[in-house]
Amino acid sequence: MKIGIPLETCPGETRVASTPDVVKKLVGKGFEVLVEAGAGVAAGYPDAEFDAAGARLTDRADAFDVDLLLKVRRPQADEVQAMRAEGVYVGLLESCGEDEIVSAMLAKGMRVLGMERMPRTSRAQSMDALSSQSNIAGYRATIEAAARYGRFFPMMMTSAGSAKPARVVVLGAGVAGLQAIATARRLGADVHAYDVRPETREQIISLGAKPIDLDLGESGSGEGGYAKELSDEAKARQQAALGDALAKAHVIVTTAQIPCRPAPVLVTEEVVQRMRPGSVIVDLAAGSGGNCPLTVADEVVVRHDVTLVGFTNYPAMVPADASAFYARNLLNLIEIMVSPGDSGIELADLTQDDITAAMLVSAAA
Amino acid sequence: MKIGIPLETCPGETRVASTPDVVKKLVGKGFEVLVEAGAGVAAGYPDAEFDAAGARLTDRADAFDVDLLLKVRRPQADEVQAMRAEGVYVGLLESCGEDEIVSAMLAKGMRVLGMERMPRTSRAQSMDALSSQSNIAGYRATIEAAARYGRFFPMMMTSAGSAKPARVVVLGAGVAGLQAIATARRLGADVHAYDVRPETREQIISLGAKPIDLDLGESGSGEGGYAKELSDEAKARQQAALGDALAKAHVIVTTAQIPCRPAPVLVTEEVVQRMRPGSVIVDLAAGSGGNCPLTVADEVVVRHDVTLVGFTNYPAMVPADASAFYARNLLNLIEIMVSPGDSGIELADLTQDDITAAMLVSAAA
Repeated sequence: MKIGIPLETCPGETRVASTPDVVKKLVGKGFEVLVEAGAGVAAGYPDAEFDAAGARLTDRADAFDVDLLLKVRRPQADEVQAMRAEGVYVGLLESCGEDEIVSAMLAKGMRVLGMERMPRTSRAQSMDALSSQSNIAGYRATIEAAARYGRFFPMMMTSAGSAKPARVVVLGAGVAGLQAIATARRLGADVHAYDVRPETREQIISLGAKPIDLDLGESGSGEGGYAKELSDEAKARQQAALGDALAKAHVIVTTAQIPCRPAPVLVTEEVVQRMRPGSVIVDLAAGSGGNCPLTVADEVVVRHDVTLVGFTNYPAMVPADASAFYARNLLNLIEIMVSPGDSGIELADLTQDDITAAMLVSAAA
Repeated sequence: MKIGIPLETCPGETRVASTPDVVKKLVGKGFEVLVEAGAGVAAGYPDAEFDAAGARLTDRADAFDVDLLLKVRRPQADEVQAMRAEGVYVGLLESCGEDEIVSAMLAKGMRVLGMERMPRTSRAQSMDALSSQSNIAGYRATIEAAARYGRFFPMMMTSAGSAKPARVVVLGAGVAGLQAIATARRLGADVHAYDVRPETREQIISLGAKPIDLDLGESGSGEGGYAKELSDEAKARQQAALGDALAKAHVIVTTAQIPCRPAPVLVTEEVVQRMRPGSVIVDLAAGSGGNCPLTVADEVVVRHDVTLVGFTNYPAMVPADASAFYARNLLNLIEIMVSPGDSGIELADLTQDDITAAMLVSAAA
């Protein structure tokens, strides 16, 4: 069975869907692994390492013409054309509702597995790319905040006097938010955190941060542990109650996103105006409208003397580890997708396992 | 007595020689403080805050035409022209040996105090700008390394597998090196450190790092706690012995500088070639030739798949705290420079105090 690892061509993307370590394991299981020349270079994995791991380095067409195509980012239309009919696609789809690209793959008789559709069960945890990549995003976003902030994160006691620790507020205590909290705590900041889901409170405290408690009159806990959208009334109450806590912050890392919905506005322009000059907001929801309306996707802007960082792809800024984690997610998934057969590896019936069944995109979707 | 705080115009400079907090203290002591409009903006201190602190916001000419001029960076020739004859200059001179700028100030009858000349005594510690700024440089250089490195600094145990901590080697355990060690340790890296002065070993260990021990056959300890230049034979022995420890590093932060001498080469091209692709070298000696010959001052370059960061002004990347510390250094110095007299504040005889005497540049220098 042929596995293909093409170069990711989405602008700014540096990750690759597999690494030499994982390729070696796949080859050991009997797969033939085709890696497009240069696919891993931006992530820090040179062709020579893939070659040494047992991959065959190929051109772009060969990397797409495979039984099992592994991708990081949503494919482009010309890439779909290059895919093998009846093949299997595994990767992030970044789609909501009607989707021409997915329809085109299905029309070719392909089976399409969307990594975003991974169930949030303990068995699926080791395959969960949204989690592994969000973890990296939370870390890197906090490093970015520290690099953009004109003061120390930690408290400093020096002979020239002391500096107070930065007051960091993290909004959203999902995987990204919790890693942002942990990283800011490592750097010695005074960290406060808020999440609409009351059950996150203990996790915030266990990382050494202080939970911000608001009474919204309803819970924001949704299906599968994700946040759901609040009522308009609760949204307004949330913005008002958060305002004072946010205006005192020197650094805000916002991570509040709702799948296939615009991100909620948590940091209003009025709050930005009240922040101390030189403060920093890193808005991880920049790609879905931002948790602050002043955020500009993929740009760093200064508004009211506050720096707003709108990068939309933090995992691509830590490409070696992001690719390594993603590749291991895929490896763990592949293990439940295939079984040894009489004439080599055989694809299992993907509708039979609840993980692959949940990931499969049907024509109706 | 008039104190002047001009805007720093050196390219890339964002610091300012005083802050609203310190200005308020100076005004409280009876000084008239003139701040050039916009002087603090890049550091995060708007004009309104200086105004509220009791400063008079002025144009450029007025900020220079003062009794006591406070500067961060070495002045330009046109700035010297704007200075008041018989005035006092306090700031970094960034000069070695013959210096036309300093001569021009002395020719005007000015007294010139070089902040680099601060004695390394415990009484002078609170005025020591080299230390306060090096501390910031060590912190910010490590944040830069974390931002440029394609992997996590901390060890990560996730459901998708684990990531080992970054192996960070810090060269030079002066103020910058020690803060680089402390910051990398905060971020969870596995930190190793080397200094030519054997007495730094205990400090390295106390910060949780592992000292790299080499036998050079001589000590590199020089006057005042600074490193001295080694013999050619010891230099060669050092490079060879360091090679293996450095080639295993994922991140190197080098801080080895010798006052008014080219920086020693500690990271050879051969070592860079042996490092893992994606490794990062942050060379804090970039401004004086670099501890690695591949470093390019004020640029970030990739050589042999290793990123070399050659920024030369890290304090300017943390301008709010860097200015605050520098301003407090100056405030502490001013306290020993003046005394209350019958008709207001009077300048003391600067040759009488051992600190100001050491800082004074004479025509002979």
